[in-house]
Amino acid sequence: MAAGNATIWKPSPSTPLCSIAVTKIVARVLESNGLPGAVAGLVTGGKDAGEAIAESRDVELVSFTGSEHVGRIVGKTVMNRFGKTILELGGNNASIVMPDADLSMAVPSVFFGAVGTAGQRCTSTRRLYLHRDIAPEFLERLKKLYDNIKPADPLVDGTLLGPLHTSAAVKTYSNTIDHLRSINADIIAGGNKYTDAHLAAGNFVEPTIAIPKSADPSAQIWSTETFAPILNAAVFDSLEEAIAWNNAVPQGLSSSLWTRDIRNLGKWIGPGGSDTGIVNVNVGTSGAEIGAAFGGNKSTGWGRESGGDAWKQYVRWSACTVNFSDSAPLAQGVNFDTAT
Amino acid sequence: MAAGNATIWKPSPSTPLCSIAVTKIVARVLESNGLPGAVAGLVTGGKDAGEAIAESRDVELVSFTGSEHVGRIVGKTVMNRFGKTILELGGNNASIVMPDADLSMAVPSVFFGAVGTAGQRCTSTRRLYLHRDIAPEFLERLKKLYDNIKPADPLVDGTLLGPLHTSAAVKTYSNTIDHLRSINADIIAGGNKYTDAHLAAGNFVEPTIAIPKSADPSAQIWSTETFAPILNAAVFDSLEEAIAWNNAVPQGLSSSLWTRDIRNLGKWIGPGGSDTGIVNVNVGTSGAEIGAAFGGNKSTGWGRESGGDAWKQYVRWSACTVNFSDSAPLAQGVNFDTAT
Amino acid sequence: MAAGNATIWKPSPSTPLCSIAVTKIVARVLESNGLPGAVAGLVTGGKDAGEAIAESRDVELVSFTGSEHVGRIVGKTVMNRFGKTILELGGNNASIVMPDADLSMAVPSVFFGAVGTAGQRCTSTRRLYLHRDIAPEFLERLKKLYDNIKPADPLVDGTLLGPLHTSAAVKTYSNTIDHLRSINADIIAGGNKYTDAHLAAGNFVEPTIAIPKSADPSAQIWSTETFAPILNAAVFDSLEEAIAWNNAVPQGLSSSLWTRDIRNLGKWIGPGGSDTGIVNVNVGTSGAEIGAAFGGNKSTGWGRESGGDAWKQYVRWSACTVNFSDSAPLAQGVNFDTAT
Amino acid sequence: MAAGNATIWKPSPSTPLCSIAVTKIVARVLESNGLPGAVAGLVTGGKDAGEAIAESRDVELVSFTGSEHVGRIVGKTVMNRFGKTILELGGNNASIVMPDADLSMAVPSVFFGAVGTAGQRCTSTRRLYLHRDIAPEFLERLKKLYDNIKPADPLVDGTLLGPLHTSAAVKTYSNTIDHLRSINADIIAGGNKYTDAHLAAGNFVEPTIAIPKSADPSAQIWSTETFAPILNAAVFDSLEEAIAWNNAVPQGLSSSLWTRDIRNLGKWIGPGGSDTGIVNVNVGTSGAEIGAAFGGNKSTGWGRESGGDAWKQYVRWSACTVNFSDSAPLAQGVNFDTAT
Repeated sequence: MAAGNATIWKPSPSTPLCSIAVTKIVARVLESNGLPGAVAGLVTGGKDAGEAIAESRDVELVSFTGSEHVGRIVGKTVMNRFGKTILELGGNNASIVMPDADLSMAVPSVFFGAVGTAGQRCTSTRRLYLHRDIAPEFLERLKKLYDNIKPADPLVDGTLLGPLHTSAAVKTYSNTIDHLRSINADIIAGGNKYTDAHLAAGNFVEPTIAIPKSADPSAQIWSTETFAPILNAAVFDSLEEAIAWNNAVPQGLSSSLWTRDIRNLGKWIGPGGSDTGIVNVNVGTSGAEIGAAFGGNKSTGWGRESGGDAWKQYVRWSACTVNFSDSAPLAQGVNFDTAT
Repeated sequence: MAAGNATIWKPSPSTPLCSIAVTKIVARVLESNGLPGAVAGLVTGGKDAGEAIAESRDVELVSFTGSEHVGRIVGKTVMNRFGKTILELGGNNASIVMPDADLSMAVPSVFFGAVGTAGQRCTSTRRLYLHRDIAPEFLERLKKLYDNIKPADPLVDGTLLGPLHTSAAVKTYSNTIDHLRSINADIIAGGNKYTDAHLAAGNFVEPTIAIPKSADPSAQIWSTETFAPILNAAVFDSLEEAIAWNNAVPQGLSSSLWTRDIRNLGKWIGPGGSDTGIVNVNVGTSGAEIGAAFGGNKSTGWGRESGGDAWKQYVRWSACTVNFSDSAPLAQGVNFDTAT
Repeated sequence: MAAGNATIWKPSPSTPLCSIAVTKIVARVLESNGLPGAVAGLVTGGKDAGEAIAESRDVELVSFTGSEHVGRIVGKTVMNRFGKTILELGGNNASIVMPDADLSMAVPSVFFGAVGTAGQRCTSTRRLYLHRDIAPEFLERLKKLYDNIKPADPLVDGTLLGPLHTSAAVKTYSNTIDHLRSINADIIAGGNKYTDAHLAAGNFVEPTIAIPKSADPSAQIWSTETFAPILNAAVFDSLEEAIAWNNAVPQGLSSSLWTRDIRNLGKWIGPGGSDTGIVNVNVGTSGAEIGAAFGGNKSTGWGRESGGDAWKQYVRWSACTVNFSDSAPLAQGVNFDTAT
Repeated sequence: MAAGNATIWKPSPSTPLCSIAVTKIVARVLESNGLPGAVAGLVTGGKDAGEAIAESRDVELVSFTGSEHVGRIVGKTVMNRFGKTILELGGNNASIVMPDADLSMAVPSVFFGAVGTAGQRCTSTRRLYLHRDIAPEFLERLKKLYDNIKPADPLVDGTLLGPLHTSAAVKTYSNTIDHLRSINADIIAGGNKYTDAHLAAGNFVEPTIAIPKSADPSAQIWSTETFAPILNAAVFDSLEEAIAWNNAVPQGLSSSLWTRDIRNLGKWIGPGGSDTGIVNVNVGTSGAEIGAAFGGNKSTGWGRESGGDAWKQYVRWSACTVNFSDSAPLAQGVNFDTAT
């Protein structure tokens, strides 16, 4: 809207009421300022509504947030009509902890990154790479925090863990736990749905820490995002190894390094460092600065929704050349003498 | 390469020798500076080679110049793997001549735009919109230039018209001429292949000016690019009408307005003006400033190959946040107190 | 303040009450947001207060608006202690009217530029350069507007002319009128103080149009700013001549060209064009865009108080180089081998 | 010259031959490219030539490199005529060494910073602040390097120490050594002119390390630049203390911190950190990146001779507003209705 565009919002099919409420607020503000509320339009619905937007030449730019699977379809549909897309797809975000890290900062930050919002942020921490020297202590301190989680109504002050979004999300969670068991991963915290009837009915699941036998980043458990509070951990011996693991997955949204040493900082933010769109140091993976570019690389879709260059996606670009003179020289100094 | 990337070049299947020669020159320069020549690689070939590049995850960005048809396939193929594309596809560029234009500048510039390089530039002038007051004079003066074209070897000094690229291009030219005849367009110059045996064998075709009965921009003759020296002309009564026609085609590469009046300039380069990527005033459609962004909007594919922002497409973007302090605040001021 | 600085305001000695009122408002806003009101401090007073600020090392940047005479002293005083200055000094702004100008726009705009705020804006129009072809008509239409001015209370709706600031300003006005008479300038409008006792007591003066015998820009009448509603006019024959006159005075704040022709626009805003800090086309000299850089060149002092680069004056600049590696190469590749 | 200006160079009175030679080379290049050599003019001479340039309105911008004393005069002279200045004056550059610094990098870098070019760089290291924990070891290792300096012809490969510029510079050196003795500073290396007749005749002086009794930065020995290889050292207990000393002198050119800890980096480059124009980390004070802004704050004169914004000083600034419409609205929405 800052760039002069009208917008149409197609929210998730599971949150129509929120989006109607928000749209009404926006409309009221617009109309009280002499603008039609329809400048910020809304259409609720499912796949059909989404497809109609993706296919419509009237929607010059489609900004989509969702899964890699759907994002791929949206991207190709809009490309088919030479529209523009901004894609914010999967995150599979790693935190790397060096031996010189301040664990009193790193442990609670990783805890929040993995458990906060029940692991349902695109920037949630899903992979934890621990240097061998501090791995045992780190896991022990982290486990203590997990052991004290009390699931509750997220509207109640002090609640750290609320429910998953839908029962389908609970099913996805369970499938991943089953997969972890099938590959003999060491589940050191969580791993179950809550047995309490209230919680089970409410889609609550136990935040989980698992240590797969292999750290091979091409394995399914490491290369796939599960949108739930499951944190997979592995031990590394050198920063170079940990960066390689960080970069080896398809997704590229966020990543975080915990260290005090300037040399590690240089490796991490330099050309051989993390390839994600958000690269943090001593900040968790879900700590995006509001003024900076938000978005990810690779399968995350390369989209950027904020930061100094974001507005450029929302405008038509033209290079204007005005000839103020009395003669019109040809491009590239071509000689094309029409005198006969 | 300025952004630190290695490149692989897949030229048109019809120009392998040029590209090999150029690549050898580049390799020599690289190697004499201690860099491997393969930094600027080359692969010649046809559709198979192109597809291999479009599909390869090793090629993070594919910059494609060609037709809308192939560009659409390339775009979707690369999108399927979440790679990046720069597309420079069709041009269907219009020149608009206002009654206050300096015809001694505009006539030869339109002539060069339509006939130069035998109409085989992506920025060639294909549509000519003339204000009613100057249309007869403009066409008379333009026709005089067309009548004096002498096709010849383009390597000979003073030659203004060389051949088309291939016999397939001659066929496309003929098809469009046939179509013009079928819709009873008034062909006021050209319209034939040359009868001289040498020229016919050499893929020479007559530069053509046609005046279709209708100026409806959705008609095939106006909305499709023919990569040959065919110029379609129409008469308009107001600048607003001419801008609407300029913008109504799928393509959006270049456009040009001829006027002396500051008010027309404002309309043309303003928000309600031309929607192409190159917007010229008193400069022909093929007059791109080397320092400015080169590329087009809409079906031209939105690519930009030069200008101040072009390099940003060739680099990985990361927003880095470094926490220099002794505490790690959570994003969005979230309160997530783990103390028990 | 946006750049994180505290400020101290030393207003004109003749407006202490306004500045106290404004400062109280600002303080209230600051304090209601938990900031000390003293962040935006005020000191009223005369020369002594100004000198104290100019000399104080505690005031790292002095932004001064006033006369060239005092600005020169402030600039040198602050330079003596290597502080920074932003100077907005005299304006001596010209409007140039070409024969193709739209007089229905140009005449009222020049009228407002010369008479609005009783000629007491730094951007007021003080010089009027008319192309010979339209000079008589322009002056006739302008004079009609002057003849209808009714001086009145500026707080009354519809009043176009209020009083001068002080009786000292009236004296300056009178001196310039006397000088115009002494050089036999043709005074075609105004030229007197109002005889009505109320108006005379209130520092009202008649807006004046004078045509000096000579247009030589080095003459006192052309090269000096009188902060009052006096407009000096001259006739030119070519745009180049008018631009030369525009640029020949010491001051360089604002200037304005009236034309419809793109070629004139190119000459005026190009490298050989107007040398003032504000360069307008079909906008009066006092028409500064709020988003653009406000300030002037040459004796106006080169200050810029707004626009995209203005904030850079208010911050400390540092070029930071961080070496992330394990070795410290010397600048400029110097070889300084200390191994023995 | 990149910004389109002609230049006139007034070199130091003691280096006329170098500057004539360089100017001849430049002139040859210009003239072989069809430009008059005088575009890069030269005037040799002393105070008279400098004054003429400072006073001349034909020289719109004066870029002066030299002492604070002369820079102050130049600045005020040019300000008197509202010209522009770029001043690069005194440097009094400090290196701060934290206990976690890598001494194998820091010691030779400080040695080069203090002794290289015989201490005759504006960015030479003149102040050394050592954390108490590493001060003895640092000084011991540094002293060893000083003990092995062999003065020689600077054109001979491997020479680390050449002569001072003039005998006047030798006198300044001696005066500072005398002053160090008078305040009972501990001179732990150097402190003498060379007794060898050849060296003495050649203006060679011994690089010197002195430890004044007091670290008070307002004392003459700390607050004044001596353009010679004299390094004054002091011991600190906290980074905050060292930064305060770093910032307490009038000059603000370069400074350098040696540390491995990210928290120290944050303090040093943050708002409460070093106030110099060049702020280095693990790079010596004389390690300016060519692409970054070169210049200093405070008494160093605020000039910037390179970096992305430097060219803006060399051009005339104008904010151009073009009105493309048929009406001319007044600034600030003023209502000035002239209809009668």
